[in-house]
Amino acid sequence: MSSCAFSTSALRETSLQNHEWICRKPSDLKKNCISVDVSHLKMTWHNSMRWKQTGSRVQCRALDVENNRAFLKGELFQLDDVIEAQQFDREILSAIFEVAREMETIEKESRGNQILKGFLMATLFYEPSTRTRLSFESAMKRLGGEVLTTENAREFSSAAKGETLEDTIRTVEGYSDIIVMRHFESGAARRAAMTANIPVINAGDGPGQHPTQALLDVYTIEREIGKLDGIKVGLVGDLANGRTVRSLAYLLAKYNDVKIYFVSPEVVKMKEDIKEYLTSKGIKWEESSDLMEVASKCDVVYQTRIQRERFGERVDLYNEARGKYIVNRDVLSVMQKHAVVMHPLPRLDEITVEVDDDPRAAYFRQAKNGLFIRMALLKLLLLGW
Amino acid sequence: MSSCAFSTSALRETSLQNHEWICRKPSDLKKNCISVDVSHLKMTWHNSMRWKQTGSRVQCRALDVENNRAFLKGELFQLDDVIEAQQFDREILSAIFEVAREMETIEKESRGNQILKGFLMATLFYEPSTRTRLSFESAMKRLGGEVLTTENAREFSSAAKGETLEDTIRTVEGYSDIIVMRHFESGAARRAAMTANIPVINAGDGPGQHPTQALLDVYTIEREIGKLDGIKVGLVGDLANGRTVRSLAYLLAKYNDVKIYFVSPEVVKMKEDIKEYLTSKGIKWEESSDLMEVASKCDVVYQTRIQRERFGERVDLYNEARGKYIVNRDVLSVMQKHAVVMHPLPRLDEITVEVDDDPRAAYFRQAKNGLFIRMALLKLLLLGW
Amino acid sequence: MSSCAFSTSALRETSLQNHEWICRKPSDLKKNCISVDVSHLKMTWHNSMRWKQTGSRVQCRALDVENNRAFLKGELFQLDDVIEAQQFDREILSAIFEVAREMETIEKESRGNQILKGFLMATLFYEPSTRTRLSFESAMKRLGGEVLTTENAREFSSAAKGETLEDTIRTVEGYSDIIVMRHFESGAARRAAMTANIPVINAGDGPGQHPTQALLDVYTIEREIGKLDGIKVGLVGDLANGRTVRSLAYLLAKYNDVKIYFVSPEVVKMKEDIKEYLTSKGIKWEESSDLMEVASKCDVVYQTRIQRERFGERVDLYNEARGKYIVNRDVLSVMQKHAVVMHPLPRLDEITVEVDDDPRAAYFRQAKNGLFIRMALLKLLLLGW
Repeated sequence: MSSCAFSTSALRETSLQNHEWICRKPSDLKKNCISVDVSHLKMTWHNSMRWKQTGSRVQCRALDVENNRAFLKGELFQLDDVIEAQQFDREILSAIFEVAREMETIEKESRGNQILKGFLMATLFYEPSTRTRLSFESAMKRLGGEVLTTENAREFSSAAKGETLEDTIRTVEGYSDIIVMRHFESGAARRAAMTANIPVINAGDGPGQHPTQALLDVYTIEREIGKLDGIKVGLVGDLANGRTVRSLAYLLAKYNDVKIYFVSPEVVKMKEDIKEYLTSKGIKWEESSDLMEVASKCDVVYQTRIQRERFGERVDLYNEARGKYIVNRDVLSVMQKHAVVMHPLPRLDEITVEVDDDPRAAYFRQAKNGLFIRMALLKLLLLGW
Repeated sequence: MSSCAFSTSALRETSLQNHEWICRKPSDLKKNCISVDVSHLKMTWHNSMRWKQTGSRVQCRALDVENNRAFLKGELFQLDDVIEAQQFDREILSAIFEVAREMETIEKESRGNQILKGFLMATLFYEPSTRTRLSFESAMKRLGGEVLTTENAREFSSAAKGETLEDTIRTVEGYSDIIVMRHFESGAARRAAMTANIPVINAGDGPGQHPTQALLDVYTIEREIGKLDGIKVGLVGDLANGRTVRSLAYLLAKYNDVKIYFVSPEVVKMKEDIKEYLTSKGIKWEESSDLMEVASKCDVVYQTRIQRERFGERVDLYNEARGKYIVNRDVLSVMQKHAVVMHPLPRLDEITVEVDDDPRAAYFRQAKNGLFIRMALLKLLLLGW
Repeated sequence: MSSCAFSTSALRETSLQNHEWICRKPSDLKKNCISVDVSHLKMTWHNSMRWKQTGSRVQCRALDVENNRAFLKGELFQLDDVIEAQQFDREILSAIFEVAREMETIEKESRGNQILKGFLMATLFYEPSTRTRLSFESAMKRLGGEVLTTENAREFSSAAKGETLEDTIRTVEGYSDIIVMRHFESGAARRAAMTANIPVINAGDGPGQHPTQALLDVYTIEREIGKLDGIKVGLVGDLANGRTVRSLAYLLAKYNDVKIYFVSPEVVKMKEDIKEYLTSKGIKWEESSDLMEVASKCDVVYQTRIQRERFGERVDLYNEARGKYIVNRDVLSVMQKHAVVMHPLPRLDEITVEVDDDPRAAYFRQAKNGLFIRMALLKLLLLGW
């Protein structure tokens, strides 16, 4: 249930159950959200609900959505912000993917689409990520919107003088209609969203979340394989540190009959929390050290980069880990005809260049899908369904 | 009297009195300025007038305006450039503020205003200032204009190879319609304006001027308090180094019955030049070490940041100065109901976060007013009244 | 013969002669290029032709144009990319210059031209060059196009993580319609063009090429002097390291009765390869140490900057070289009335500031011409003639 649905339904204790809430003071709330006074609410504290009280006012805002909702054209989008992959369930993902498909058509066919004309997006990047920034800025401009850019907010801005993130957000929201933020600290995006009265999209916050990457990964699997239920996915490479594979595993757990294979050097194995989560959701998974066997069974081989910086001075361990599981022509030769190789990019040599020409090499199409997903989210957050 | 008024009025010796002039060769002058030959002019040298002769031609251009002028819709703006707060007197300020009010309406109501469509603004920042840059770029884009950005011209550009500012300006003016410049050297904006045949706006030149900040401060006081004559203003914090408070004191001197209180640690007291200037203009001022008493009397408490870099290795002095005058709930409790707290931002802890929720906390509205003032100036410089 | 002409003409062995070809796999080819299978082609290897075979497919793409071609309005441009000055012969240069003249009119007269509306240009700068970047971005925006900017791709992007240029290009081409690239490695632009399915413009690749600078230099000579055949040009300064003068010498060799004078300190003399090339093309040249005499004869005195970094620790040699040939009022005094002084900028003191006011000082007009040439190329690559 979103803050908007909230505004039109009766306030009952039950209506707040099973939902995570992030709240802020009603006077700050944009759109049509009602004012809520602490004294009128029976506040029951669930794990999935958060309230924050400031003075005599309660701050309230949804970061999760309930099951009964409308995706009708013209309806408001259920989310105010895009902060983490957990905000999305399979129904809303499916609806977003439909919009992304429309965006593919718009991008290909109509030069100079103007549905976001007059909207201004601020890209507040506290950490450089040219790829992600350009993808968002392209998405905005493909829909006729405009962009305010900071390529390296950390070095340049008032942050260097000691300004809090909250103060920066309060200033920047005065200059724009939506903020896309990349930050080096886990949780920064959530803090920004709680402060801002305009939508915030998390474009990666440190070791935390990178939800648009997770969405484009799932979108790519559906586009390439044609389904999400019943798929077999091999996650390969650095599974301990890669937030991409962790988010992907999390999202895949929303689908039925999924089987996940973990293929990684010993030092960067998938951590227990994700394994336990998958088990709790009834998702089958197994670890394997045989990439060839896994590749022959999977619909998706999802390769990732081994990050040198994780190994400190142990260059020997890095080199060993790095060379262990390479996707090359041999791996291709055992893969099924309909299967695909994915990679969040950038890659080094964990996928050899000879793979690029194979139609099953999906990673550049995957990167392009990021554009469509971001176009869809910008459209939804600014205009609604 | 501006170069434009100049072009339509008779050339009399008297018409040049009491005005500061910066001049350049008439053949360089854009718009409808007449050509002036040295031999046709009785050149009388006042303190408030400057002529520069190159070869046989006199360079002439107004940096100040005279009293009898038109603010009629469609008329040219009196200024070619915005270089320093001293260019503005209360009549032109008042007229600019009216335009800024229109800009508030445009920003709120009409998505995709296009009055500056086809105009190109170059932001030439030799020193990073994300806040100021985004504010200008937002202003331009909110009016349909386009922007060429340099986030850090000092490091990147030909400046690193030893090019003069004048050469850079001559190149950049070929690519754009207006230049917004931030520079680390006092006087750089004036040099740029003398070179350029397109308007230049000073977005801060080192310890020198930052006129749009001064304008937005005065605009905010008028918006919040409803008047400028007769107000009482407490300037708090670093009064020795803050160009903001110095410019504000200067501008306030244009109004009647103003009273200014200086509240600052001993090491960063307001300098004598401003005090003497205020006295010479008949403005009452006094120094105080009692923030509570000042706060209870003032319409505006204008807090500023103590800048650590001013104290060198004397961390002890910095810490003492920094903690001395904090605006917190206690200060709020003695302030009048209609009074406001202002701050040029960024802030550290000289205003506590608990103040933010009080309706008298005006600093984020003040930052937003920067947008409206900049929209107004861009409109006026490019299109006229 | 371009890939486009290729698509409409019969495939004969002779049609491939005397042309340089860079090829890529037909399935990658944008526009209307036909698919070519190796087995259907008699492949004859000329020096001026290059084929690259990948698997069973031949990659093919023109980087040169043939003589019989159309410059009719609406026809496709003969080039897919702008990589090096050698791609242009005098017929196509002349046609491009006509378009550049139209661009002068567009820039001056019609505010908000929209012929490139809906097109997105990515400026991928691996090495900072504010001047060149702003010139391209202004060109795009003056025609209604939009821009994605990277001010310093080298530091920021995935390149820092070890991604290949090819992978970066494949991602960025998904977000834009044309790529303008500056790189620190010679040959990088060609590699980018071979990878990309959208046009690539080389905005300088290390010591290699900077073709738009070469074009704007020739365009400036024609605009200023009124002709290219029969002109006398003095190239002054650092002739050993300046890629500008090398490219200019190369392009001037395409015209008749040209005479070139080399005036440079001993340590930075023009290299033998260019001298031999000029001789082979029947272009007269001579070396001189007498700037005054050369200046009195030439139509164009093309001055360049002596680059300190070329001298290492030999500051004495640098200072000697630097002071040797200065264009000042004395030089002006012997120059012909119709002659001009040019410079690629930035300048230090190799042209004194007193020269700036002389109508024969053409270097700022030359910089502005860069805008028109770039507008023309963007228009041609994206829309055709």
